[in-house]
Amino acid sequence: MSFAASVLTLYPEMFPGALGVSLAGRALEAGTWSLDAIQIRDFAIDKHRTVDDTPAGGGAGMVMRADVLARAVDHASPPGDSRPRLLMSPRGKPLTQTRVRELAAGPGALILCGRFEGVDQRVIDARGLEEVSIGDFILSGGEPAALVLLDAVVRLLPGVMGNAVSGEEESFENGLLEHPHYTRPQEFEGREIPEVLISGNHKKIAAWRREQSERLTKERRPDLLGAQPLVK
Amino acid sequence: MSFAASVLTLYPEMFPGALGVSLAGRALEAGTWSLDAIQIRDFAIDKHRTVDDTPAGGGAGMVMRADVLARAVDHASPPGDSRPRLLMSPRGKPLTQTRVRELAAGPGALILCGRFEGVDQRVIDARGLEEVSIGDFILSGGEPAALVLLDAVVRLLPGVMGNAVSGEEESFENGLLEHPHYTRPQEFEGREIPEVLISGNHKKIAAWRREQSERLTKERRPDLLGAQPLVK
Repeated sequence: MSFAASVLTLYPEMFPGALGVSLAGRALEAGTWSLDAIQIRDFAIDKHRTVDDTPAGGGAGMVMRADVLARAVDHASPPGDSRPRLLMSPRGKPLTQTRVRELAAGPGALILCGRFEGVDQRVIDARGLEEVSIGDFILSGGEPAALVLLDAVVRLLPGVMGNAVSGEEESFENGLLEHPHYTRPQEFEGREIPEVLISGNHKKIAAWRREQSERLTKERRPDLLGAQPLVK
Repeated sequence: MSFAASVLTLYPEMFPGALGVSLAGRALEAGTWSLDAIQIRDFAIDKHRTVDDTPAGGGAGMVMRADVLARAVDHASPPGDSRPRLLMSPRGKPLTQTRVRELAAGPGALILCGRFEGVDQRVIDARGLEEVSIGDFILSGGEPAALVLLDAVVRLLPGVMGNAVSGEEESFENGLLEHPHYTRPQEFEGREIPEVLISGNHKKIAAWRREQSERLTKERRPDLLGAQPLVK
């Protein structure tokens, strides 16, 4: 059974975009996954095809209407559809590799891409949308975030990566940042490959890589070393 | 002076992708920013146009060669180019809205998109590449991350967003997650817009929104409330 992604967006022409190329693109052609980009505007209920309106209580920007979005969600994900319903949003739970793995093991995902100021809270509540954030920065809309989420998921689908071992050794798969890499040439601008890596001693190499991973993680991301956020 | 982005990639056809549409696309056409997607393979030094080789010390996957990447970086960012040189990498410093604002205020960026297992450490050191991560998950390559970074930056460039106020009120711009939004219709599936928002009392509305922002941030992202990572 292939992974079925349905994306609700005002810019269906942004898809598959980068996902139509390389690994993800070949997997899409091979039917390992499917991608349905659905125009939210098609679910508007007035002749002007309005999808947004001014925020209740005033303020800048526009808010996407609950009724229009509910119609779009119900069309793309009718009752009985077991796929999670995600809303890409900077207010959401930060995406982790663990959640990516869960999604890749499931039947697919409905992904709603917000635009403008945001989405009427009532459709989030009424349709049980799971708010997902890819990071602490603001995008012009949910679309680039959806591309990132799908890229992360698709590479884990069976048969997509040439070398399954590779995926397991990478950053976050073991809770640490990845060690530095080196390859030929042996010397580059006077810089040599670290001696241990050309020693042929696999035990020492593994120990060195582990040390480097731990060092980098401690330096750059102590929060990954079991550190808990300290709440004021 | 417009923001100049140069992207080094094995898949230049992924660009501008989503950045050629909507706000970013119009700004690209208007010359508010420029985007040069450069094929790394053009800087290979053998007739097979090799860009990668097996990792020193063994292991899965392939590593991008320092010498090839250095030639590509030197071409795209010759001496005197004051743009920061970024390497999209899950080992990097997590991207924040503060860094996005800094980049948007600068002359542009050189962005190197890694693929395969990673990039030879020596080119990172020798060319002073700044490793930037968009989150704790693994992508098939740096390209989707570069699209996200550029989308975040471009929307902040002068004249790109219709309403400058809008940008300032959003999540992270004040260190809190954004409050819930509502718009017409007044009732949706039996759910009403919260009364305070239709009261017309702007002071009460501002206070309610602030409370909601603080509540959501405390519930979902206590780390944003000045919490420091607790190092073991």
